[in-house]
Amino acid sequence: MSYFDAASSAPLHPVARQALQASLDEGWADPARLYREGRRARLLLDAAREAAADAVGCRPDELVFTSSGTRAVHSGTAGALAGRRRVGRHLIVSAVEHSSVLHSAEAHEGDGGTVTEVAVDRGGAVDPEAYAASLRADTALACLQSANHEVGTEQPVTRVAEVCRAAGVPLLVDAAQSLPWGRVEGDWSLLTGSAHKWGGPAGVGLLVVRKGVRFAAQGPVDERESGRAAGFENIPAIVAAAASLRAVRAEAAAEGARLRELTERIRARVPELVPDVEVVGDPVRRLPHLVTFSCLYVDGETVLHELDRAGFSVSSGSSCTSSTLTPSHVLRAMGVVSEGNVRVSLPFGADEADVERFLDVLPGVVRGVRETLGAPVAGGDGAAEAVTVDALGMACPLPVIELAKAIGRVRVGGTVTVLADDEVAAVDIPAWCWTQGQEYVGERPADHGVAYVVRRSS
Amino acid sequence: MSYFDAASSAPLHPVARQALQASLDEGWADPARLYREGRRARLLLDAAREAAADAVGCRPDELVFTSSGTRAVHSGTAGALAGRRRVGRHLIVSAVEHSSVLHSAEAHEGDGGTVTEVAVDRGGAVDPEAYAASLRADTALACLQSANHEVGTEQPVTRVAEVCRAAGVPLLVDAAQSLPWGRVEGDWSLLTGSAHKWGGPAGVGLLVVRKGVRFAAQGPVDERESGRAAGFENIPAIVAAAASLRAVRAEAAAEGARLRELTERIRARVPELVPDVEVVGDPVRRLPHLVTFSCLYVDGETVLHELDRAGFSVSSGSSCTSSTLTPSHVLRAMGVVSEGNVRVSLPFGADEADVERFLDVLPGVVRGVRETLGAPVAGGDGAAEAVTVDALGMACPLPVIELAKAIGRVRVGGTVTVLADDEVAAVDIPAWCWTQGQEYVGERPADHGVAYVVRRSS
Repeated sequence: MSYFDAASSAPLHPVARQALQASLDEGWADPARLYREGRRARLLLDAAREAAADAVGCRPDELVFTSSGTRAVHSGTAGALAGRRRVGRHLIVSAVEHSSVLHSAEAHEGDGGTVTEVAVDRGGAVDPEAYAASLRADTALACLQSANHEVGTEQPVTRVAEVCRAAGVPLLVDAAQSLPWGRVEGDWSLLTGSAHKWGGPAGVGLLVVRKGVRFAAQGPVDERESGRAAGFENIPAIVAAAASLRAVRAEAAAEGARLRELTERIRARVPELVPDVEVVGDPVRRLPHLVTFSCLYVDGETVLHELDRAGFSVSSGSSCTSSTLTPSHVLRAMGVVSEGNVRVSLPFGADEADVERFLDVLPGVVRGVRETLGAPVAGGDGAAEAVTVDALGMACPLPVIELAKAIGRVRVGGTVTVLADDEVAAVDIPAWCWTQGQEYVGERPADHGVAYVVRRSS
Repeated sequence: MSYFDAASSAPLHPVARQALQASLDEGWADPARLYREGRRARLLLDAAREAAADAVGCRPDELVFTSSGTRAVHSGTAGALAGRRRVGRHLIVSAVEHSSVLHSAEAHEGDGGTVTEVAVDRGGAVDPEAYAASLRADTALACLQSANHEVGTEQPVTRVAEVCRAAGVPLLVDAAQSLPWGRVEGDWSLLTGSAHKWGGPAGVGLLVVRKGVRFAAQGPVDERESGRAAGFENIPAIVAAAASLRAVRAEAAAEGARLRELTERIRARVPELVPDVEVVGDPVRRLPHLVTFSCLYVDGETVLHELDRAGFSVSSGSSCTSSTLTPSHVLRAMGVVSEGNVRVSLPFGADEADVERFLDVLPGVVRGVRETLGAPVAGGDGAAEAVTVDALGMACPLPVIELAKAIGRVRVGGTVTVLADDEVAAVDIPAWCWTQGQEYVGERPADHGVAYVVRRSS
């Protein structure tokens, strides 16, 4: 098996395993107690905090351990918003944040706050000017990920932090994806991370709140972890998290360069090997280990299933692979194709031979799915002025397949109107036009569903 | 070293260690993913849920794993209160609940809810009639621990559950202390637990919500664990928690009988070996492994320190051992002496010889501390009508020591007035009177501090 989904969860690093096992005997007692077992637990906890703070680049008393990265985000956003409630209740997030940030924003809105979502470009990056333009007198907090979890694009954190600092607004950086690779530079105010993303154990997140940042922990009072993370400390896991972060950092430069070369190979070769593919995310400013592409005319679920059968574990932002049957909000915000989406995120130590085997297997998998679905052949020299395609009742990727079949039946300058009620079409039809060099005219409500109009340009 | 503080945290059970290590290789992936590693993780999680549900006595789909017992209580109370918000915002708790419950109640009050605290008797138990009398038309939730964490007293959960059920009010049972020993009987609606209390790893709590109970999870949305416990699942720890709960249950009957005999020995012999001791908590309806007593005229911190030096790890509810410098709310609610308080909670497998050694060491430790503090000798045949003692500026246990010295200077029927500004005196002076058979007349504000008046009865 080749596990290529490190961005979801990384296999346990050997150092994490050693540290966990070594500290099970010393770290089970209550570190608040003054007897010997408690003092030993406290020493382990303090040492882990020092190590983690050093890796993050903060003071130990600025860092608390939470029970997960999600919890760090929930507590960090809620505490920072409450700490600046007198200033106002406006929150800024990017459109491509992790769901934990977006769900925190929804909860804030549900509680009467206001939220501005900053758009991203087609590469998935925000524009610092857009953050600057979103800042208001009542802005309590801004959030920006260090790098995107689905497409790997690095965000301009340093510049956004400058913009926020100039306005006196704290910036919370969700660093879950980038923390294994290095510190987050720039003058941020809060930072969150998740140990199982860097090969640490599950059950450990980080929340850093810089000195001087107003912060009012929410929820019932609890004395542990400076009042910022309720519940008994999970010390063996915390020790393992800190030790493994240090270990992956020691390997990060060399391993990052090696994995970047492997993902570069995927970026370059997949479009050569598979027709009608869009590689998404910034080609340069990106995480070293992550590459994402979308294959037209296939459904992501079948592709994942076939890749799993062939021994590859990857993930997808396609609608058919999500419980809500909507495509990834990241792909949607970027305006890129979501159908047949595949994310490859290589774990530390990923084998070059496995990557080559993946490149061998992928074209046949995609071809097989396309054949089953009756995917179109490019081109055609039709003469019709206008064609209407009824794709009502069809789910992704069928409406796009019907569009691609119909486009060859109209003359250059003619239009295809697709009637569809699958809401993914609203994402994928414009994105298809962009990849195929066709003109997306627009959409309008129809008697049933929505009518999407496309003009043939070539 | 003899670790006698299992009620704070139990050493890791060998089965927990084995299960944790065995599942580190299989349980690190995201159980929501459909590829092989995700499916394996899902299988482990499902099996652990079945095992835990069987031990608790509920359906697997009624049980979610949280990141700690504290988190289970916070989420359970908040979700149950929100689920019945239309009924009203009244919450009932006992006065001796764990701080996680009381802090949840404070948060509820801070948010505009109302709270009734049900008193306990001198043994630490609530009266089901008092719960019945506290129920109102707008009562959304009642909370009651299965057994007290500081004195071991078992609560009448079955009867309180009946009373609540008759009124249509859900009962949340904090079962953290009793879960290793058996299921919680009775028709409760919600239940919480904490794995590190039964020898499982830190980082795992249980929240059970019976089918049909209205529940609205609070905080940002998160799909994991039925939306009731945000954050990536900590599967190796969950597997270890479930396996060790099953293991301790298999030993519970025999080990419970053995430890009950050992704690019975402490209950009986400490008052024989150490003068001026009050053993607190119900002598019969109690947890098998836990015994608590308070030694007059000593401070708990020094006793704990000396016991630690002698190789015994115990805890205390004395004011001087808490960060807030107030005595345990449990001892206060029971009206028992808080000074020189010692809680012994034996872990599974505690050695009888260590208990005997504890009984050998304890008298000398208490005697030594008393000598240092100048503790009084009982009796005296004074003739004064009234004596006033200035204990202003003195901290526990000194005001009580001054009272005990002065009582011998007045005739039977005469009074001693103690001026004190240590607020612990408000707990310990009445409790001292009770243990010594003297009459506590009352208290009144003085120019400085409070005047406590005691009449000599014997």
